[in-house]
Order: sequence, then structure tokens, then C-alpha cells
Amino acid sequence: MADHEAGAETAARRFRDDAHAAVEWVARYLEEIERYPVFPRVKPGEIRAMLPPEPPETPEPFDAVLADLDRVILPGITHWQSPMFFGYFPANASGPAILGDLVSSGLGVLSMMWATSPAATELETHVLDWMVDLLALPQGFRSAGKGGGVIQDTASSASLVALLCARERQTGFAANRVGVQGTLTAYTSSQAHYSIEKAAGIAGIGRENLRLIDVDRSYAMRPDALEQAIETDLAAGRSPFFVSATVGTTSSTGFDPVRAIGEICRRRGLWLHVDGAYAGSAAVCPEFRWIHDGLELADSYCFNPHKWLLTNSDCDCFYVADRATLIHALSILPEYLRNQATESGAVFDYRDWGVPLGRRFRALKLWFVVRAYGAEGLRQHIRRSVSLAQEFAGWVTADDRFELCAPAPLSLVCFRLKGSDAANERLRDTLNAQGEMYLIHTRLEGKIVLRLAIGGTYTERRHVERAWALIREAARQAG
Amino acid sequence: MADHEAGAETAARRFRDDAHAAVEWVARYLEEIERYPVFPRVKPGEIRAMLPPEPPETPEPFDAVLADLDRVILPGITHWQSPMFFGYFPANASGPAILGDLVSSGLGVLSMMWATSPAATELETHVLDWMVDLLALPQGFRSAGKGGGVIQDTASSASLVALLCARERQTGFAANRVGVQGTLTAYTSSQAHYSIEKAAGIAGIGRENLRLIDVDRSYAMRPDALEQAIETDLAAGRSPFFVSATVGTTSSTGFDPVRAIGEICRRRGLWLHVDGAYAGSAAVCPEFRWIHDGLELADSYCFNPHKWLLTNSDCDCFYVADRATLIHALSILPEYLRNQATESGAVFDYRDWGVPLGRRFRALKLWFVVRAYGAEGLRQHIRRSVSLAQEFAGWVTADDRFELCAPAPLSLVCFRLKGSDAANERLRDTLNAQGEMYLIHTRLEGKIVLRLAIGGTYTERRHVERAWALIREAARQAG
Repeated sequence: MADHEAGAETAARRFRDDAHAAVEWVARYLEEIERYPVFPRVKPGEIRAMLPPEPPETPEPFDAVLADLDRVILPGITHWQSPMFFGYFPANASGPAILGDLVSSGLGVLSMMWATSPAATELETHVLDWMVDLLALPQGFRSAGKGGGVIQDTASSASLVALLCARERQTGFAANRVGVQGTLTAYTSSQAHYSIEKAAGIAGIGRENLRLIDVDRSYAMRPDALEQAIETDLAAGRSPFFVSATVGTTSSTGFDPVRAIGEICRRRGLWLHVDGAYAGSAAVCPEFRWIHDGLELADSYCFNPHKWLLTNSDCDCFYVADRATLIHALSILPEYLRNQATESGAVFDYRDWGVPLGRRFRALKLWFVVRAYGAEGLRQHIRRSVSLAQEFAGWVTADDRFELCAPAPLSLVCFRLKGSDAANERLRDTLNAQGEMYLIHTRLEGKIVLRLAIGGTYTERRHVERAWALIREAARQAG
Repeated sequence: MADHEAGAETAARRFRDDAHAAVEWVARYLEEIERYPVFPRVKPGEIRAMLPPEPPETPEPFDAVLADLDRVILPGITHWQSPMFFGYFPANASGPAILGDLVSSGLGVLSMMWATSPAATELETHVLDWMVDLLALPQGFRSAGKGGGVIQDTASSASLVALLCARERQTGFAANRVGVQGTLTAYTSSQAHYSIEKAAGIAGIGRENLRLIDVDRSYAMRPDALEQAIETDLAAGRSPFFVSATVGTTSSTGFDPVRAIGEICRRRGLWLHVDGAYAGSAAVCPEFRWIHDGLELADSYCFNPHKWLLTNSDCDCFYVADRATLIHALSILPEYLRNQATESGAVFDYRDWGVPLGRRFRALKLWFVVRAYGAEGLRQHIRRSVSLAQEFAGWVTADDRFELCAPAPLSLVCFRLKGSDAANERLRDTLNAQGEMYLIHTRLEGKIVLRLAIGGTYTERRHVERAWALIREAARQAG
């Protein structure tokens, strides 16, 4: 197995054999995925106990490794790609995405700078521009003007980068240089993803200097409450500088009113970041583009094709309206990275658009997906998810034992058994322990609520019907 | 290509066909890699100009996508996997690593928490413990005690996380909560990777509050200068809290004296991070373990199997001696992530060990590599790289026109034509423009110096011989 002994050509022949075997393993896994309990029946430590305590001294054959995927790994897998996985938000993958990633691994290039693989940088810029077209995002995010898009690993990283841009713009790039000095204050809603709070900690702002603004009954940030909070902070001598609005909150897909929030931010000079991690993908369909109303007022935006657009993790599309601020906030040019292309100013060096230096060639998988599905196929995927969720919400409403707990405009349905939190937790645990489906809970207005998140690549009507049958049966037994 | 129309089984059949074709493409690429110019002959914008301005409306066949890899992508690839690539540090991949990544993409799970795929978390912990054995790292980094390892995307992210841990320990976890307050001061050498400076900016410390300590003639940090700087800062009322030492600097593989630095850090209560991004992998061989002398005094450490240990990007192994500090610095538990396993305290939730929430199942590729090569194969790879570099350094020394510019204890050789910077830049540009090999420069003691970084998976003696022949010929023509 020591590739180098025999040179690249022999290594390639061995790679070919092993790779075809690995493909067969993956194909079989996808064919048989419904046979596994969606949530694995293992206790902490059980997987490790099946592994040898010491690393092998000598090479092992590839079929031994593949056999251990079945023996050791599959018993401990939570099957995110199962059509019966309804937890969190989906992390959908697809054949074309898997193969885009395979080619990326095979090429083994880094896209940290244009010069370290021009095609990787230019394809990333190009496909991110395509996504502006596909989602009808504001033209200001296109690379042809002052803006531009870049792939981040996750929306958590995108939030951090947005916050850093805002911090630097507010301080005239002094925070970077001399450190954060006390009074910077940020805002998001009480329903925002926890990564905003994490980012405030990381960036030296302080989690307590992030105000969690009240939401209305549909779990959308109240612009009046935002404005009030900003005024209170200004009166106290603080420096409001950043608002993160969410389109499609994690708990319930609440939608903050981006336009109203954006007008406040523009008037007062605050950076507006919009987090569309899950719901953003819906905008491939014209009928769902209301979610982005007012987005042209945003300074930055992100959505995750790795959630609901058939592209496996990690693939978060992050846009800024003014890339100069972003680059100024994050770039440093040491001698060993100097090169003609960078110094010409004619290229993007994506290492300056995020935290990591090294970057995989991730644009390939998004390119593969867009070409394999076409705009038409992407819209079809979104519409099917939404329509299944709407049907499910109808079934919940029609059943006296259950209630809907939040608006369900897209493909997440929040519902609960009328009754105690304990009854709902029992229902969740029963369903998940049976192994045929998987869902998680959240808390809305203090109550435990179950979330059915639809959007898996292979989820069809029969799966949602089956989930509803299982839920009703488990409720009957609990009741 | 719309996978969902026909369900998972049909999708799997289509995947199988396309995947075998993709494997053939990658295998052919690796077989033919030496036919391409290592650095591509493209100008900014040329790749984009070959791409349609608008995304496709309807699905395209997979063979059209594969054909475009040849037509559009390969002409813009910098061939990092070429055995004639000697730029930066290697980013070596290998067959087993590519296939570990393929299986990870196929499973499509997230390892953000134990519960989101127990096997992904447990394999990561297990393989990171294996790496402690393989490199003979301090036992304190093992998960069985108070420490533990985690995969980060890059050493840049590892440095940032280390700095955050240090910041929180120093402030009693107040910086996270109320923000950074002014006087925190960090230290690294003038030869350290720029990501330390970037991290100081991101974490709100301020780049100017990172002291760049002088180095000695072998480009190693001077402990006396470090101690002096700390004393000066203390006298000025500042709070020294963090030192980043490097084992194997980017410019020249200088080695900071970890033991002497560690003793200073212990005595004064500073967090010591050790960055072994490139050179760390050498410690699979007992004869190179001197690089880690004193590492038991470090609070955190990282090295990158994606540089010199046959595992493709992204795979940085990051260790801490006290995981409680790390988790305290980065964790927040929102309702939608609550689960029994997390609350039992019996599991690791790796989302709390870094910035991103979502995480690919990256331990698979490292597991595949260690099993396919065995400790024996890994040592063989390192030894071969070092021995080729030593030979090359000998050739340089024996040629009157050239001089070595720094110690070359491992597999990076820094050398230059005796003569002007311009002559050396011309030499570099001539070699890279010819296309048969690729190398970059750095600056040492103010002079332009060429770097030949060996360590590619497929680099054999004949490649290094050929590189030397090309260098001599280009020097002759320039002279």
C-alpha cells in the first residue's frame, strides 16, 4: 500500500481498483439505507471498544478497511441521508455532489490564493455568481461590482466573518490592530442561531454585548424593539455596530423582517448580516423569494447549499456587498505568499475572505450539482419538500390530539401533542427508539415542541405518510 | 438527474455508473499528472471566460461535466499532487485518503455532536489518540486523561482556537462574556506563520499586541528575548498570556526551543501553543522526535497530516492538555441541540472544540491512511522525503554558484544563487514558466531565497535529480 514505492502510475492502478470497490460500498449503502435504524442503538464508548487500541504497524488490505465500515462504523451512524431522517435541518447530499467532492479530493489542490490553483478560485467566483442568479439575490453581491461570494465551511463561520467585517468597519480597522475596546454592541433576535452569540465571544465583543431582541408571535424579530434597544445603548454611550437577521430560524423557521431591519441599519450605520442558512435555498423558486425582501439593504448574507440544495457538507455561500472591507479586515501578506497575480490586484485570493489559509476545492461539488439538476431540478426539490410539509401540517391540524406551534411556511413543521412536556418528550423518545424515523424537539414559548424537518434528497410522500402513521400510533400508545 | 423522482434505489444505480466514470477520470489524472505544466499557463479571467455566464436551466448529462474537467478546469490547475511540485509545503493526498473522503461524502453525516453520528465522534477521538502513539506525543494529550484531540480544518483555525483558550483562561472566562479589555499581550517569533497575527486580530487582542520575538541564526525563537519582552510588558502593566512556538517554520523550517520556552510559560502562567503544522509529521520516525522536545510543557499543539502525512486537506490534528478549558471557552447549549448523551457528560461534542457547528466526518480519511500504510509505511514516506532533501542540499553545497541559506534538518531546502535578488527571482520565474517543476521563494535576512519543499506522495529520486538539472541549466542561462 506504500504508493510511493512504485511511483504514481502503479499507485493510480491500485487506486482504481480500491476506488471502484469504495464506490460499490457507497452505492450499496445508499440502496440499503432504509434498512438501518435512523438513530443508532449504541451507547457511548461502544464504537471505540470495537477498534484496536493501537495503530497498525504494517499495512492492511483495503478490503479489511471496507469490511470494518460495515462492522464498526455503520452501527454508530446517525443516518442523515435516510429519507426518514427529519431531525435538525437536512444535510442533503446527492450523487453529483459526492462526485464533485471525489474529483476535488483527487485533484488535491488548495484554493487559498488564485495562484495556488486559478481554476479553483475562478470556478468558485463563477458559481457563486450563478447562485446570485438562481436565487435572484441582490446584484450588489455579484463579483462584477464591489461585492462577491465565497464558500465558507458553515454558517457559523460566515457569521463570525460578518461580525469581524462589521467590527472593523465600525472601528476604522483599529480593533484588528490594537484590540477591541469595550463598548461595541451587537443585535440579533432571541430566536437566532447560537453561533451569533459564539461569534460575539470569539471576536472579543463579549456575549453579553449581544442583545437578543424580542420576537413577535410568528417568531420574527420586532423592528420596534430593535430600534428601542439601539437607542438605549446609544444613550448609555455604547457603540451599536452589527445586526444579524435570520430568514428561517432554526427552531421554527421564523422570518425576521429584513427590509424594516435594514432601514434601521442604514439610517444608523450598522452592518446588517442576514443568515439564510436553511431557508435561503428556497429562493430558487420565484414563489418563495418573499423571504429575501429587503436583502439589498444587507451588507452580508449567507445560505447553505449543504442544508437544502443537494450539496454535501461543507458548503456555505457567503456574500458581501463590499468585498474591500472584508479583505481589509482579514488579509495579511507574508513574503512566502507573495506572487505576481496577487500583486497585480486582478485576482481574488480567497484566504483573505475567511479564517483558514488552506481551502479545499469546494466549488466543484456545487458546480456539479447545479449542472446535474439544472435550475429546474433544484426548484423541483424545494417545491417537493415544501409541499410534503404543507400536507403534513394539514394532517396535524386535522387531528384533535395535536396542535401546530408555529407558522410552517416552508418545509419545517413544529407541532406537539396537546398535553405535557413530558408526554411530548416521551413521544419523541419512543419514535426515535423504534428506529424507523428520527426527529428532534425545540422549545417555543416555554413548551417542548417537536420538529419535523423535511428536505432530504430521497424523502418521498410515502415516507412522510409513514412518519405520520408512526407518530399517531406512538401518541395512541402514550395516551 | 433529479434523484428524488425515482427514489433512493434508482438514484443509487445512477450514482454507481457516474461514480465509476469519475473514478476513471481521477485515476487517469493521477497516471498522467506529469504531462501537465505544474503551474498552469493561464491569465486571470481565462478560466471564467470558458464558462457559460448563466447557470443551466435543465439538467446536463454527467459526461458533459466530466468533459469540462478536461476542457475548462485542468488548464487552470496548479498541480499540487505532481511529483515535480516543490512549492509551499506539500499538500499530499493518497489513494486511501481520497477514498476515506469518498466514503465520508457518501455517508453524508455531521459530527457536530456525539448524537449526530456516534461513530464519527468516536472514530475521531480514537484516531487522534492513535496519532499520539504514532508521533510519541505527550500522554497528556490523550483523551483518557484530561486532554484530547480534534480535527480542525487548518492550522490557522487551530491557532485561533488555542489563542481563544488562552484568552479565556487568562481572564477567568470573562473576555467571552464581556469582551476583551485592553492589555492582553501575546508572543511568537518573527518567523511564525502569519495566521498567529491574523488570529490576534480576530480574537480582539489586536495584531499590535502580538510581539514578534527575535530569532537566532537558525531561525529559532530566542528564549532570552522572549523573557525580556514579557518583562517589559509586565513592567508596562500589560497582561502577557499566550506564546505560540513553531516547530518547523514556513520560511525555512526553523525550530523554536520548545522546552526553554515552555519553562518560561510555566513559570509565568502563559499558555503555550506549539505549531507543528508541517514538521510535526516527521515524529512518526524516532530519529526526528527531537523536534518535540519539551512538548509536555505545551497547553496545545497541532500538526497537519494534510501536509506531509498522505492525508488530503482538510485535516489538522489539534490537541489540548486540558479539554475543559477549551470546551468552556467555546460551548453554548441551545435547546435544539439538547440531547441525553450530551447531558450525561459521557461524550465529546466536537462542535464545542472549534468554530464551526457542522463538521464533515474527516476522521475516516485519516483512519484509512493509517491502516493502508501502517506505521511502517508512514515512516518510510517521511524518511524518503528527508533523505531526498539531504541529497539535494548536498548538491547545492557542492556547486559554487549556489549557497544554502538555512539549516535543512528535514525536507525543505532553502538556497539561492550567489548574486542579486533579481537573479534569484529570474531563476524562479524561468523554472516555473517552463512548467516542468514549481517552487516559490521566501525572504531570509532580507534576501530572496528559493525554497525546494519535498514531501509529495509520488516524488521519487529521479524527480529531485531532474529538478536539480533544471535549476542548474536555468542558472547557466541566466548567468
